[in-house]
This record gives sequence, structure tokens and C-alpha cells, in this order.
Amino acid sequence: MTRVITLTTDFGTRDHFVAEMKGVILSINPRATIVDITHDVEKFNVVHGAFVLVCAYKWFPRGTIHVVVVDPGVGTSRRAILIETERYYFVGPDNGVLAPAAARDGVRAIYDISDFREWEVSATFHGRDIFAPAAARLSLGEPPSSLGRRVSEFVRLDIFRASSSDGVVEGRVVHVDSFGNVITSIDVGHVRRAGFSYGDVLDVQVGRARLRLRFLPAYGFAERGETLALVNSEGFFEIAINASSAASALGVKVGDPVVARRARSARG
Amino acid sequence: MTRVITLTTDFGTRDHFVAEMKGVILSINPRATIVDITHDVEKFNVVHGAFVLVCAYKWFPRGTIHVVVVDPGVGTSRRAILIETERYYFVGPDNGVLAPAAARDGVRAIYDISDFREWEVSATFHGRDIFAPAAARLSLGEPPSSLGRRVSEFVRLDIFRASSSDGVVEGRVVHVDSFGNVITSIDVGHVRRAGFSYGDVLDVQVGRARLRLRFLPAYGFAERGETLALVNSEGFFEIAINASSAASALGVKVGDPVVARRARSARG
Amino acid sequence: MTRVITLTTDFGTRDHFVAEMKGVILSINPRATIVDITHDVEKFNVVHGAFVLVCAYKWFPRGTIHVVVVDPGVGTSRRAILIETERYYFVGPDNGVLAPAAARDGVRAIYDISDFREWEVSATFHGRDIFAPAAARLSLGEPPSSLGRRVSEFVRLDIFRASSSDGVVEGRVVHVDSFGNVITSIDVGHVRRAGFSYGDVLDVQVGRARLRLRFLPAYGFAERGETLALVNSEGFFEIAINASSAASALGVKVGDPVVARRARSARG
Repeated sequence: MTRVITLTTDFGTRDHFVAEMKGVILSINPRATIVDITHDVEKFNVVHGAFVLVCAYKWFPRGTIHVVVVDPGVGTSRRAILIETERYYFVGPDNGVLAPAAARDGVRAIYDISDFREWEVSATFHGRDIFAPAAARLSLGEPPSSLGRRVSEFVRLDIFRASSSDGVVEGRVVHVDSFGNVITSIDVGHVRRAGFSYGDVLDVQVGRARLRLRFLPAYGFAERGETLALVNSEGFFEIAINASSAASALGVKVGDPVVARRARSARG
Repeated sequence: MTRVITLTTDFGTRDHFVAEMKGVILSINPRATIVDITHDVEKFNVVHGAFVLVCAYKWFPRGTIHVVVVDPGVGTSRRAILIETERYYFVGPDNGVLAPAAARDGVRAIYDISDFREWEVSATFHGRDIFAPAAARLSLGEPPSSLGRRVSEFVRLDIFRASSSDGVVEGRVVHVDSFGNVITSIDVGHVRRAGFSYGDVLDVQVGRARLRLRFLPAYGFAERGETLALVNSEGFFEIAINASSAASALGVKVGDPVVARRARSARG
Repeated sequence: MTRVITLTTDFGTRDHFVAEMKGVILSINPRATIVDITHDVEKFNVVHGAFVLVCAYKWFPRGTIHVVVVDPGVGTSRRAILIETERYYFVGPDNGVLAPAAARDGVRAIYDISDFREWEVSATFHGRDIFAPAAARLSLGEPPSSLGRRVSEFVRLDIFRASSSDGVVEGRVVHVDSFGNVITSIDVGHVRRAGFSYGDVLDVQVGRARLRLRFLPAYGFAERGETLALVNSEGFFEIAINASSAASALGVKVGDPVVARRARSARG
């Protein structure tokens, strides 16, 4: 039995931390396939970690174990959890970082693994001492129930909520990427339920900005410098300026509310 | 059947892009061995990507599939190609980034894989949606002909051309490394055909600089601060200053023409 | 037979150097499992490389081959060595970078592999031409004696020495981490032999600073802004300020001597 284990952390790659997690995993399961998602999550930024995970998790094989360590609360009473979903396992701190991806995949069971230990646990390195060995045990086919006790709840990240009705979508800004594109919690499902079609003209509120813009299939369909809305390659509703930074132009930041309402239909 | 797949991109490692390519590959071929060459190619710099690839490709096992995504033209009409060479496969955009390595290894067949798809293709992420799945299919032993149609040409990178005759080599600057060494398109084969021997004195034109210098086996054979020519550990003819930056001292940049002519033979 | 091979270098990840080492290893042993410890050791900083290795090495499976290339002396007469220890193999330049980890694990035999070659050796890239192929040979189960000749000594790093007696530990500063914590060569074994208990009050000299502070189990047991001593998650004796930089406050740097003496026992 070999399962893929992915790692997403804010440890950087300059120190020994990530390597120790890998050493622990390979000591328990020498056949594990380990893939780095990223170790450059902004330090302690749970929303950033959650966003990277929600984009990446679904491209991995069924049964993959996604480990995330973005953990400002290590050493406090926050729980360590394991979430079993329709197709994956998610392992990390119970601070919301796993929640958006797990919820999207469909939660089947949640386990509190705070008391799991392979050896004496350091107060400050749960990534190596709890999360990595728990993931390695899962990758060997051990059942989640051997690692902790079933619980009914886990911490959600409010920022990833969104809603839609005919002609309207609502959500929040969850990420500004390196091009300045403004990515929202609204996904392709909300957009379909709102009934938006390419070419529709939308009235958009994002933070304090008010805009009228077109909903288009891709950046290239807009004029140079035109602000547009699109569903990006990850399936998220995004506000962008073709070849420029929408976030700077609009003064937008992560957490700002977003509402987009159809002003005029492309279909007449 | 397991083949190595290497990845060279300008995506950086902070985002989810590289991980998604790996997830796709492992979903298609769970036994694939994936090796990062680098993800820190300068954004959209095709020459930089081509240079890293031409250095690294030949150290991998026969049958390795080299995927490169440095792709300023994604979303335009540039083709996606697969090049089969004597020992390897090269997969990426048809913009020249694969050309120097493929040409060196000996081109056997070229395929246009622009219409290959494993699923609906995003307008903006061909790395994940075309190149990664095509590489994964190859790694399973599927024939190149199942991924696209044979074509006869691909885009070359002029900058990697070089020539030589008795006592003369000619080419261009293709890279300035982090030490300031000036690396040219002239390779060890050209140097041999020119008949240069260690100790020869060369007259060198590089950009607007004119120099008389010695051709030596390694940096350590020069005086401290002496400008020298050598064949570096990658087999490229290089102008260097022992323990200093030749590029700064000579005002040289990528693309500048280089001519080196023997002024005096070490053999008498 | 498959063994893990780890890589620790100062090459960075922007160039082709690390990839070439991996290509060489996979060409010799296609089943090798390769793990990056880090490639961001400060250029030519042997103490930094040794510190990362001494933290990480022990978390890997028995039989792992640790390759380190931090090598200011490449091209000079420094030897290439292989050290066989109780549980591991260490391969790299004989400049001290392997010494602290190898000594801790227990040295069983030392081999001079300067004359080992798989092919013609470049003057400037021993990582690819000597260390990587030697590690790959070991990973196939070939005996160390086939790679070089037994020798009796290797270069030590004085800075990693430490000692202890009842109530006293002595050593040096070996690392200042990104939080400004001052990490010493004194390990948990020295601390146990000195008989320190949590709550003991210690008189500490570090560089030119003289302090009286408490020995505590973790940062969180100190008052905010209190200077404390602890054994960190790697097992090293450390001087820290809770939520601040001890190195800045104390004017301490790598190499400074450290002495800690019990002034008052917590046990009365």
C-alpha cells in the first residue's frame, strides 16, 4: 500500500524542519511518496495556507494524505485533527487551515489526534512529532480510528463562505496572487447557480470599490487595461485587470466583501 | 515501466502551480519519479530556461521526460510540442525553450500535441492541463504518436548557434551565472575543432570588449584577478575572472556576440 | 536494496547544479529515494551546513546516506571522504561539515574517496562527479571499501565541542536562528550530566554577556521578555528571550564561548 503524502507549511526551505518531517515519514513508511505543495506560506497566515491547499488538493490521486502545518497556536490548547473526506485525508492543526478543502471534498469523519504520539512530543514541533507520523501511519493503511477519537466538529474559516441566487453572487476576497489578481471565495458552482454567461455586464462591489465590468472567459478576451471578472483556472471567481494589478488599482485586500450582480445579460 | 519526469518552470515555489502538475502526473502514473530541475527561471525568460535545461538534461537516465514551462505565449496560437531525441523526450511550448537541448541530443521526431487533452483545458494553465498529463502518458510507455501528429519543424533559438574553424570559435553569450561568469553558446566540440590547447593566448571580442587572455583548464590556474577563458563543468566556453565578476568588469550581457581567435600557441 | 539519499548544499535552487546531482544518482540507481535537506546553506558556510545536518540526520531511516556539499576548498587538495557511523553514511568534503553529525552517531570507519570516479572528474563540480555517484553506489549496497581506502582521521569542527561536569556546562554558539535564539554546541546529554533541573537558576557567560537566568522546559514558561535557558526541540542547550531576539539583546554571534553554572538549585 502506498499513498501520496503532500506537505504544505510556513517553514521555508532554509532550515531542517521540513527535512525532519520527511525523515520521520520515511522511517515509518519507506515507500511513501512525498510531494511538497509549498513551504513558503506566509508565516502563520492560515488563510494563505488554506487557499493554496484548496487549489492544489483535488489534483492528487484518491487516497492522498494532505498534511498542513501553518500553526500559530502550537503549544496552546488547539487540537490536532484528521479529517477523512470523500477522496482524501487531511491532517493538521484545528485552526481552519484544512477546512475549505475538506468541506469542498465532502467531510465523512473527523478525528481528534491531539493525543497521538509515536514518541515523546516536543512542545513546539508538532509537524514532526504528531502530524508527520500520523500521516505515515495512514499511508501504511492504518485506519484513522487507530490515531484518535471521533469528534463531530472542526474549526471553519468564515472567509471561505459564499452564496448565490439568480443573478447575484456574494463572498469575500481570499487571495491576491503575485500578478495582483483578486481571487474570491465564490466558486464556479455559485457562478453557475447565479446564471452568469460570458459577455454579461456585472455591477461589482469589492471592498469600497464600485465597478461595472464584463464577465469573460479569460484575460485575453478583455482589452488591455480593462477590468474584468472571470472564473480562473482553479474554478474561483476573480476580478482582474488584463496585464495589470487589480488589487492595487482597487485598493482591495484579503477579507474584503464581494458582491457581483448582473446589470445586463449578454443574451439580451 | 517507470521513467523519470523532470520539471523546469518559471512558476516559483510559493504557489500551487507546481504541486498541481505533480498531482496530475501521480494521478496518471502513481509510480512516476518526478525531479525538479528548477522553478526559479526568470519569469518568461526563454533563454534562461533553455540554458538550465541544456546543462541539466544529459545527466538523467535514458528515457527521461523533460517538461519545461516557460511560456510567455500561453493562450495565443503557439503550439505545444513533444520532441523525441536519441535518448530523451522533451515536452513544452514551441517557443525555442526545448530547442538547444533537443538539438544537442539529436532530434528523431517532432509531434504537435496542441490538441492533446486529458480533460477540458484551461486557457491559462497548459502546464497542468497539457504538458503534465502528456508527460505522464509517456512515462507509462504510451507512444508519442498517441499524443499528437508528426510535424517536421520546431522553433529554434538563434542565440545557441556557434561555429568554429582552425584557430577560431564564434558564438553568443547565453548566460551570466551568479558569480558573474560569462557563458557562451560555444561548446567543447567547437573548441576542439578550433584546436585550442591549454596555455594558448587568445584574442577575444565579447560585446564591445577586446581582450587578450589565456585559455586555461580551470579558475585556479589563473592569477587572482586575471581574466581567462575555459571550458566549464557543463562543457561551455566561458570568460571568467578568477574570484571576481567578468560580466560586470566587461559590461557584457546575454545575447552579445563572442569571437575568440588564437594569437599565440602554447605549443610553440 | 533501496536507501534514502539526502542532499544538503549551498547551491541554491535557481541553477542546474542540484538537478545534475539527482540525475547522476538516478542514472546509477533508478530506485533511489532522494530527499533535499536544504540547498540554502549560506554560501561556503561550513558551520551552518554542519548545524542543519546535525539537526536533521537522525530523523532518517537507518542506512540513509547523507551527502553534504558546502565546499569552499573544491579544486584544492582537501580530501573527499565517506564516514560510516553506527546507523548512517556521510559523504562530502573533509572540511568538518560532516563531523558533528558523524561524531554524534558514532564513527565506525572513515574512507578517503578522493580518487573515486565514475567518469572524468571536473575540477569544480565534485558534488556531481564524486559525491553523488559515490552515494548512489552506496545506495545500491556496494561496500564503502570499494569506493576508497580506509583512513584514521577526519577534520573536526572545534566549534561543536562541548563538555560538562556537575553543575556546569561549556561549549560555543553554533547557530542563531531566524527568531534570534542562541543555539549552543551543548546538547541534552551534557545538560543531564551537569544535573540541571527545570527551575534551576544558572549563571551564564555567553560572549561578553553575563546573565543570571532560569532553566525552563519551554519558552512559554518564561515571562514575556524574560531571558531563559532551555533544551530546544533538537536537543541543544539554547539561550532565548521569550518573544524577542536574544542574539541582538546580548550582542552574541556564532563562535562565542558559552559557560553555564548552577547558582541555585530548584530542588532547594
